[in-house]
Amino acid sequence: MTAPLGLIAGLGDLPVAIAENAVSTGQGVYVVRLKGFEDPRLAGYPGAVAGLGEVGGLLSKLKSAGCKDVVFAGIVSRPNFRDLKLDLRGAALLPKVLAEAGKGDDALLRLLVNEFEKNGFNVIGSHAAHKALLAPQGHIAGPAPGDGHLADIARAAHVVAALGTLDIGQGCVVCDELVLAVEAQEGTDAMLDRVATLPEAVRGTEAARRGVLLKRPKPAQERRIDLPTTGVSTVEKVAAAGLAGLALEAGGTLMLNRAEMEAAAERLGIFLYGFDPGLGL
Amino acid sequence: MTAPLGLIAGLGDLPVAIAENAVSTGQGVYVVRLKGFEDPRLAGYPGAVAGLGEVGGLLSKLKSAGCKDVVFAGIVSRPNFRDLKLDLRGAALLPKVLAEAGKGDDALLRLLVNEFEKNGFNVIGSHAAHKALLAPQGHIAGPAPGDGHLADIARAAHVVAALGTLDIGQGCVVCDELVLAVEAQEGTDAMLDRVATLPEAVRGTEAARRGVLLKRPKPAQERRIDLPTTGVSTVEKVAAAGLAGLALEAGGTLMLNRAEMEAAAERLGIFLYGFDPGLGL
Repeated sequence: MTAPLGLIAGLGDLPVAIAENAVSTGQGVYVVRLKGFEDPRLAGYPGAVAGLGEVGGLLSKLKSAGCKDVVFAGIVSRPNFRDLKLDLRGAALLPKVLAEAGKGDDALLRLLVNEFEKNGFNVIGSHAAHKALLAPQGHIAGPAPGDGHLADIARAAHVVAALGTLDIGQGCVVCDELVLAVEAQEGTDAMLDRVATLPEAVRGTEAARRGVLLKRPKPAQERRIDLPTTGVSTVEKVAAAGLAGLALEAGGTLMLNRAEMEAAAERLGIFLYGFDPGLGL
Repeated sequence: MTAPLGLIAGLGDLPVAIAENAVSTGQGVYVVRLKGFEDPRLAGYPGAVAGLGEVGGLLSKLKSAGCKDVVFAGIVSRPNFRDLKLDLRGAALLPKVLAEAGKGDDALLRLLVNEFEKNGFNVIGSHAAHKALLAPQGHIAGPAPGDGHLADIARAAHVVAALGTLDIGQGCVVCDELVLAVEAQEGTDAMLDRVATLPEAVRGTEAARRGVLLKRPKPAQERRIDLPTTGVSTVEKVAAAGLAGLALEAGGTLMLNRAEMEAAAERLGIFLYGFDPGLGL
């Protein structure tokens, strides 16, 4: 009997897709839903609920369930460290967590991965747990990007790589090679909302689409956690912001419900494009 | 008789302060208000109204008025090049403008400065036209920044310098060394508004202030145009966003109505701090 996949789950479609996939491949899954971020769609799977600070509890639950591979997936907002409930293991980790917290999200995540690995688990990425999620390379769906779009993609790829070395964000919007917006803690959706409010002179419209949203991981990113994730709503927001397309680092970003994303892109006239991971580095 | 200062003015308090200063020092001023951006407070000065594309008209008006020093000041939104009305001189410049437009605001501005210098004018910065505007170095007003604030300032100074080399923006918000927001085309006010909407776990509040807004020019910036400008409303927005203070590159950012800014900082409990121009480079 294979060991079930250990899934430490926050909110969103990603953990749901991973759980479904693990069951459909016959591996099975044990789901720890994080307290405050419990998705009801995951309630039917074998599993438990635990707080982010209950590190000891998390480890022992996964061990009892016989898990070896563990995946972190889903959206969890940055904890308020003053309000966090800690068990002994969590409390032992806290000074390190606080020391790393200021260095950005990536340092925090790496700390968690290390703790799980030290306890004998094999931490894998969402893309390793569910291989169909990774963006492929080249033109994916919608109209083919033109030379102007490819120039926007090249500039955006360079900008997001540079931002990533500062551990800032995983996305930006470029239109006619001008950087319209940069993503930090507000997330992609809020960034796209504000692009739609910029003066029309600098951006596209639904009638005359211009510009591109580009997503890629940070160069030094712990790729087993927190790869940039896109879905149907991303395609819809890109369309509403008047952009021409969505560019994703091939092999470095996740596409949730890819068939539906492609259908939305065709319907809305948005290109989906997987760019070479070496672009802009 | 000294030559009057030539002021090419957009919106906002900066051109008004420069015009007042030029009159009070006895130099006098000739104000070209840019079409679509005419401030009524400048209507009483000798001058004219001209469109951004009427470059020949701008040059001849300033020549007739006997100007030698010319300053560009105030807010002008990025033109929609398709709608721009051009005179002959403007039309001759347009291919260059379009070629540079995609490289960011800075390339565009440098082109304008070059055109004026080629025609015998001496283009000076707002800070040269009105020396009291430049931020001084060190603690300026409000409570003194603590070590945590200075660490936020150091991180933000590095981030904005790095962004500047990509010709992106002139500001960011950092809280406990985490980059909360990065400024691109939306401007400082919109960035501060969205900081106030982030989860309270990552930011300060009016009851427990944390984090800093930092403004500095781009490293390669044409410093005669478009130095970052702050005023009383900046201090008020910083306060409303729950931040602890405002950090400005000493000698590289402008403070409009400095006495009022300092009074607002004292009243709201916000620090104003001028950091060393070498910080974070």
